[in-house]
Amino acid sequence: MYQYTKLVSFSKEIFLKMGCSEADAEAASKTLVSADLRGVDSHGVARLSGYVRLWEAKRINAKPDIRIVHETPSTAVVDADSALGLVAAPKAMQIAIEKAKNVGTGWVSVRNSNHYGIAGYHAMMALEHDMIGMSMTNASPLVAPTYSLERLLGTNPIAVAIPANTEPAFVADFATTTAANGKLEMLQRKSLEAPLGWIQDKEGSQSSNPHELKDGGALLPLGGDREHGSHKGYCLGSIVDIFSAVLSGANYGPWVPPFVSFLPLPADPVGKGIGHFFGAMRVDAFRPADEFKEHMDKWIKRFRSAPAIEGEKVQIPGDYEREMTAERMKKGIDLLPPVVKDLEEVGKKFGVSF
Amino acid sequence: MYQYTKLVSFSKEIFLKMGCSEADAEAASKTLVSADLRGVDSHGVARLSGYVRLWEAKRINAKPDIRIVHETPSTAVVDADSALGLVAAPKAMQIAIEKAKNVGTGWVSVRNSNHYGIAGYHAMMALEHDMIGMSMTNASPLVAPTYSLERLLGTNPIAVAIPANTEPAFVADFATTTAANGKLEMLQRKSLEAPLGWIQDKEGSQSSNPHELKDGGALLPLGGDREHGSHKGYCLGSIVDIFSAVLSGANYGPWVPPFVSFLPLPADPVGKGIGHFFGAMRVDAFRPADEFKEHMDKWIKRFRSAPAIEGEKVQIPGDYEREMTAERMKKGIDLLPPVVKDLEEVGKKFGVSF
Repeated sequence: MYQYTKLVSFSKEIFLKMGCSEADAEAASKTLVSADLRGVDSHGVARLSGYVRLWEAKRINAKPDIRIVHETPSTAVVDADSALGLVAAPKAMQIAIEKAKNVGTGWVSVRNSNHYGIAGYHAMMALEHDMIGMSMTNASPLVAPTYSLERLLGTNPIAVAIPANTEPAFVADFATTTAANGKLEMLQRKSLEAPLGWIQDKEGSQSSNPHELKDGGALLPLGGDREHGSHKGYCLGSIVDIFSAVLSGANYGPWVPPFVSFLPLPADPVGKGIGHFFGAMRVDAFRPADEFKEHMDKWIKRFRSAPAIEGEKVQIPGDYEREMTAERMKKGIDLLPPVVKDLEEVGKKFGVSF
Repeated sequence: MYQYTKLVSFSKEIFLKMGCSEADAEAASKTLVSADLRGVDSHGVARLSGYVRLWEAKRINAKPDIRIVHETPSTAVVDADSALGLVAAPKAMQIAIEKAKNVGTGWVSVRNSNHYGIAGYHAMMALEHDMIGMSMTNASPLVAPTYSLERLLGTNPIAVAIPANTEPAFVADFATTTAANGKLEMLQRKSLEAPLGWIQDKEGSQSSNPHELKDGGALLPLGGDREHGSHKGYCLGSIVDIFSAVLSGANYGPWVPPFVSFLPLPADPVGKGIGHFFGAMRVDAFRPADEFKEHMDKWIKRFRSAPAIEGEKVQIPGDYEREMTAERMKKGIDLLPPVVKDLEEVGKKFGVSF
């Protein structure tokens, strides 16, 4: 078991050694470890060595000049200058929040960035301002659109955080595929089969083999197949891709660069780096914040108290991650042996003990 | 076969007889028949008699005072004064477009409205202004959240329209359920079974009986079951509900009034009427419009040319509806005999021949 504060301070040391400023290292480590805290183990410290390798390959700039390249009162495009997405994303979300303070809402599309951790962390930044927060990002192509044999989209997540009054906030955070890539990795490690509807093989037939992606297969959009609405998951993933990258001037679709440093960058980029999109809407730009939040309480209580299938309950989006956070803040975070080994090696590289 | 112009002029006559102004009758009839044109037969003239019955039950106001009750530079809340949603929605979308002209984006939440036709029609209004359009609405509860035995959400559709240059626009328009209610109605009429994953029975078990909703069953959120991501469809339907109704002060969740006039209104309303949400984002609030649209062309061409499963092709959202529109503008619109009979009876009621 590892304490949250220990994982944050270790990650921060590593980011400082990479050359990040104090403020950037602080932001990056908190963003990163929020994933472990919320139970999204695939996106937390397990990825720290991946970020280091991207920095070694000069695909991540530890001293970026992150700047607004175009703006209107309610919008901005930010060039992240190859920053860690973990640094660029909270900065861009802060710009969206400032714009919302001024004109009701703020919308920021980011280019030239890298993987930004979990989508929900950035969306939740809006909550303390009584704003609704939104966050999405494109990612390297693992997903085949409906009927496609080719992988053209990432798992392209969407997060929406909505404040309530006495109830905890509503926080949706989900990949636009049937199952997130992290779930697939878990099955791979445990040598378990995947349910049908998650993956197709290289001929486009449903497959239960979690290793199918290594052999030309693909993840499937939310819905799984056409009859169950995969064209809707394909729409969602496409919207995330277009808002994040076509609006900002990042790479989109099959041109999105891979997260892993050992894969080459696409030869004919259509933009810069990967793209994100953030939104902030001031609740009182619509109705008084107290009134809105009381109705959110009513909404949440009504849904939570609905009669449920035997042995289950109706959850509110964000319930699981909040319970996980409370538990892990108290008991610590359990890391798998290969992740511990990975962190020890990263530490050794920089002379920081884990 | 019925010509588009004939269906529009007949519907307009009916709306005029209900007491709508010339401009409102024109807007309502065009919105309504756009559904028939785009192949969404369930939402077109087949619903005209339903609107008439709601007007007879005094749930629709033919002479509404649709007004902005609160606004900021980028947002507005509109009270539709019990208008036809077919009238309120284009007005609200126009307000979003005007705000986008001024500050880059516009976001409008509407309360006290009624069913607004197809979501995509309103989103597409943004295209001619080189804007991205968004449209969503809540609807009467037919959908059970993940693990719920109770119906708490409508089919709550989302539409997003994105302009391109020489390629036709990207237009996504989909219910946040596995299958839209219109598809279920089609199976009911033809006495066919539904695929598993569309419907649950009153105990929460998967069912293939398209009549299950009459016996306590429910439609399922996109994903179908938890293992296939129904919690994501539940998130999407919830976000639509909250943006449309909790932001505006309309009824939400199980309190949304039914479309059919023979069902009573919920006794303890939490707001007024049903709610919609619209968005418009000026493309050049992010990057030059020509540049954006050229990249959209590239995106669309790349996806359309991907290798596909034997006998299929990769479609771009909106392809089907555009092809349907071209065909129906040329050959006319085929109406089912019960729909024709229904329209004849509506005509008789007002002394208008169909």
